[in-house]
Formats: sequence, C-alpha cells, structure tokens
Amino acid sequence: MKPDPAVARVRRAVREFFGDPVRTSALTSGELGVAVSGGADSLALAEAAAFTGHRLGVRVRALVVDHGLQPGSAEVAEHAAATALKLGVDGATVLPVEVTGPGGPEAAARRARYAALAGALPGALVLLGHTRDDQAETVLLGLGRGSGPRSVSGMRPLDPPWGRPLLDLPRSATEAACAALGVEPWSDPHNTDPRFTRVRLRREVLPLLEDVLSGGVAAALARTAKQLREDSEALDQLADEVLLSARNGPVLEIEPLLGVPAPLRRRALRRWLLDAGVRELTDAHLRSVDDLVGAWRGQGGVWLPGDLVAGRAHGRLSLLPPGRTKR
Amino acid sequence: MKPDPAVARVRRAVREFFGDPVRTSALTSGELGVAVSGGADSLALAEAAAFTGHRLGVRVRALVVDHGLQPGSAEVAEHAAATALKLGVDGATVLPVEVTGPGGPEAAARRARYAALAGALPGALVLLGHTRDDQAETVLLGLGRGSGPRSVSGMRPLDPPWGRPLLDLPRSATEAACAALGVEPWSDPHNTDPRFTRVRLRREVLPLLEDVLSGGVAAALARTAKQLREDSEALDQLADEVLLSARNGPVLEIEPLLGVPAPLRRRALRRWLLDAGVRELTDAHLRSVDDLVGAWRGQGGVWLPGDLVAGRAHGRLSLLPPGRTKR
Repeated sequence: MKPDPAVARVRRAVREFFGDPVRTSALTSGELGVAVSGGADSLALAEAAAFTGHRLGVRVRALVVDHGLQPGSAEVAEHAAATALKLGVDGATVLPVEVTGPGGPEAAARRARYAALAGALPGALVLLGHTRDDQAETVLLGLGRGSGPRSVSGMRPLDPPWGRPLLDLPRSATEAACAALGVEPWSDPHNTDPRFTRVRLRREVLPLLEDVLSGGVAAALARTAKQLREDSEALDQLADEVLLSARNGPVLEIEPLLGVPAPLRRRALRRWLLDAGVRELTDAHLRSVDDLVGAWRGQGGVWLPGDLVAGRAHGRLSLLPPGRTKR
Repeated sequence: MKPDPAVARVRRAVREFFGDPVRTSALTSGELGVAVSGGADSLALAEAAAFTGHRLGVRVRALVVDHGLQPGSAEVAEHAAATALKLGVDGATVLPVEVTGPGGPEAAARRARYAALAGALPGALVLLGHTRDDQAETVLLGLGRGSGPRSVSGMRPLDPPWGRPLLDLPRSATEAACAALGVEPWSDPHNTDPRFTRVRLRREVLPLLEDVLSGGVAAALARTAKQLREDSEALDQLADEVLLSARNGPVLEIEPLLGVPAPLRRRALRRWLLDAGVRELTDAHLRSVDDLVGAWRGQGGVWLPGDLVAGRAHGRLSLLPPGRTKR
C-alpha cells in the first residue's frame, strides 16, 4: 500500500535526516523523542518519525508540553498526545511546565518548553517540527536584530538534543500530510496574535516579500541560511585550530595570531573570552580586544563585562580582574 | 566658519573613507570622480568629495550620466552638472549613453551607466552615493534571490574603480545636507515607480519591517552585511591559499584539498573552475565537483557549463572537453 504523496514527502524528509551517519549515531539510546504541540508541523512529524523510527529499530515517544497559559491547555495537550498515539508513536508524555522568569511571556514559555523537552528523555534526540517557513522567519528576525552571521544562519538541522528534519519542507507540506492522515491539527491562537513579532513576520512581511520578489522567498532565505551556516561553521573550526596554537595555559601567545585573517582571529578571541567567563560580549568589545593584536600601538587594557580586563604584555594576551593588569 | 552639522556629517564620512591607507593609495592618479545623478545622495556626496578631495590635493570631477530614457533627460543632466559645480567640484562631465541589450531596461541602464562611469576617468576612483538604505535594499534583494553569502554581503565600500563612502549614513542625512546647502535635489520618477522591485523594497517592505521589528532595520541589515562580507573575504583569502597549494599547472592535486573544511574547498574549486573558463556555475555543479574530492567513490566526470567536464584520475582533478576525459 503506497502512502499518500504528502505523507511520503514528510517521511522522506525524516529518512534523509537520519541518512547521515552522524545522525544515526544519535539514535544509540534506542529512543527518539518528538515534540508535539498538536499543530500540523508536529503531527506530521510525529507520524513520519514513528514510521521511520520503527524501521530504524527505535521507540518513538511524543512529548507534549502543557504551558498552562490558556484555559483548557491541559485538554489540548491530552488531545495532541492521543492524536500522536493514533499516528503510530509508541508512547506519549504530557509535560506540564510553569512559565516564569525574566524576558516577557514569549521568551519565558520558550525557555520552560525547551527545558522540559530536553529533560524528558535523557540521552535521546528530540525532533522538532520547524519547517522552511519557520527558518525564513528566524533568518529575518536575526537580520533585523543585526546580531551577526550566527543569527542569520538560522536553526541547525542537528543541534543535540535537537533534530529538525523538516527544515527544507514548506509548512504547506505538513498541512497536506495531516489532511491525508485524516487528523485535524490544533491552531494555537498565539500563531495569529499580531502582538508577537514572529506572527507579523509570517503573516505580513513574508507574504509582501513574496509578492515583491515574485515568490520563492522562504526557499531562498533557507538556502542562504544554509550556506552561511556552513561558512560560519568552517570559520569556527579554523578558529578553534588558531586558538589551540595560541593558548598557553590561561594566556594567549600573540605570535600565532598574527597573519590570521581578522574574522578568524576575532572568532578565536571570542571563544577564549567566553571560556574565561566573559559574558554579554559585544562586537565592539571584541574588536577592541582584537586591536590589542591587530592594531597594537601600546594601548591599555580593555574592560569587559564580567569585570575582567584584557591586556597585552610581553607578547601575550591575558585576562585579569581590574587592578591586577600589568602593562 | 563651522559647516552645518548635516553637511559636516557627510564630509566626515568621506574623510573617514579616505582615512584608510589602502584607500588613499587609490588617489595616486591625482583625480577623483563622483557619480552625480542630481539626487540628494549624489549631490551631498559631490560637495563632501570636493571639500575632502581638495584637502587631499586631488581634482574632483562630477560625472553625470544621461540615459536618454525620459524626455528632458539632457536638461536634468546639465542641471545636475551645474549644481555639482556650484557645490565646489572642479569640473563636471555629462556622459550620454545608449541603453540597449538584454535583461530588461533596469539592468540595461545600469550596465550602460557603470560602463560610462568606469571609462570616464581612467585610473581614478569614482565615488558612488549609495547609502545605508541602499545597502539594506541590496541585502534584502540578495536574500530574496537566495544567491548565497556573496549577494547577502551587500556592496563593498572599496571595489575599484568604485568607492562608496556613504554606506554607513542614512539617506535622510544626505537630504538634510542638501537642505542645509540650499540645493534642491532632483527626484527621479523611477525612484517612486512600483514596477521596480527595488522601489517596492524601499517603500513597502523596509517600512513594514521597521514597524514589525521596532526600528533600526536598515542599520541592522548593513551591520550584518558588513560582518558577512568580512567572513566571506577571510574565506576567499584562505581559499586562495588552498588553491595555490593544490595547483599543478592546469590540474589540481587532490591531497592538499583533503581535510580542508568543505566551504573553503568549494571556494577554492570555484575559483579554479572560473579561471579555467567555466561560466554560470551553479551551487549544484560546484557541489558535484566537490564530491569528486570529499565524497569520492569512483564516480564519473561532472559536465559543466562551457562544455567542459571535471573528472578525477590518478589523485588529480582535471578539466577537459567532453570525450577527452580519462578515468
């Protein structure tokens, strides 16, 4: 019996995701989680994950987070769990969370959700239903924030414990799969609430961009993000090698950093500073520290968040509490 | 006599552009061109270039292209030239061009304009009035096309014969400078014609993005583009080194390409293929050629545009006309 083409398309995306040997190795725990909200993306993913997981010999468990933010949220969660079971998963767990803490309700809910999902199946990969459309929104958000190459690179397909097999599929493909499977996805009212930036990107900005640029925008954004991610990862890898050659205990030798292209050097310095406990490092801070190497003219130390001062002396960079910096 | 702050701001951008030793070396011809359309960006730039150029001891010439596409275009060009002279440039030349050739009127006009500007002052730098807003539009266009990191990196400040000193200034700064200088910029009707993609990005998409993302979008896009450009240039530089180590006359030795991160290797291969005369190289082609190195399992040659076949034999990559490929 051949499956419906829409269902087959989602299954194929999951199978290709696991086709990579790296990713199959993430299945050693014998279990696989799927985050299920009850929306079309996650239900289509649950079906495809169950189908593919069984072929790969792993048990598949749906993980449903109940944020407790809306009346009836427990019923929505129970219904999503029941639907996932109907679609073939081996088990389903509802994870009630308490949404508290700083940064607004959207950020707090997100934090609580990821913490619950990450803790539910220790050692297992948890699949998330992010589609190409989610990726496009993420890239636009990152662009608008101007927070650099990392944020424009979007979400990574494999970022343990997370796996995102549907990043190359349009959202419409998951809706078509649900229709073919005969399940009715839940529509989260948050997904249409224009108070959320992401909702306005989805419902206003992206359709306008599609119109102005004559279509294909989500695919183009996702394609660009992928290439930028590859570039960024290559630079990270090379920067790790640079850092390794410059590290001398807690200090950095200047010599191996000279002649290294500046973006690579800044990446190595960033890693060194973060490892040493500097927090909320801005691009301006990083460039000032880099000037101690690339534009050295005997300047003083650079004061950094976390109350540390980066300074250069005797051909080395060191990071010390203020007052202990020597010139 | 202190200049108006708006005028001072544009002059400062031009001075900082030339502050870089690399860029001052571009002034060795003793002459500097400024492309002047008669719009606010180019008139403010002409004034600032004349002021700064004279301090640096070079003659500054306004270059006004007459595309001949609208009735009265010759008068508009003459008026722009006269205004530039009033603002202090040493000379002004109107360059009539014929807009013909493939790719639609927008592309044809652009091609004719850049050819005329590039040929007007051989050996001299020609300044262009692109602002941060133009950069934001360019980045969005590149993103929407999905044509990779290069296009998302936007326009480069120095790309001889072109110089773009105003890439960090908002368009409003040039309008304020023109008002302070008492000149009335010309409004190109093309700049409000919604048949042009760039016009719709400027007038519809960017204002909506500004609203949805609470402002600062043009600056964020320009900032991200700058970082991506630096990353991309670092990778290009490293790829040139990889290519140098692998080149053996017309062929490439495989060995130096192994262990190199894939994005770097693909850049090196891209350069090799373009140098060898391959045209319109797609990402898919490039990845197939890269597989001859990174995913080698004895596969056959890769047919490329320009009627050449890339193949691997005896530990080397070669590029040959079809039929002459050996396994």
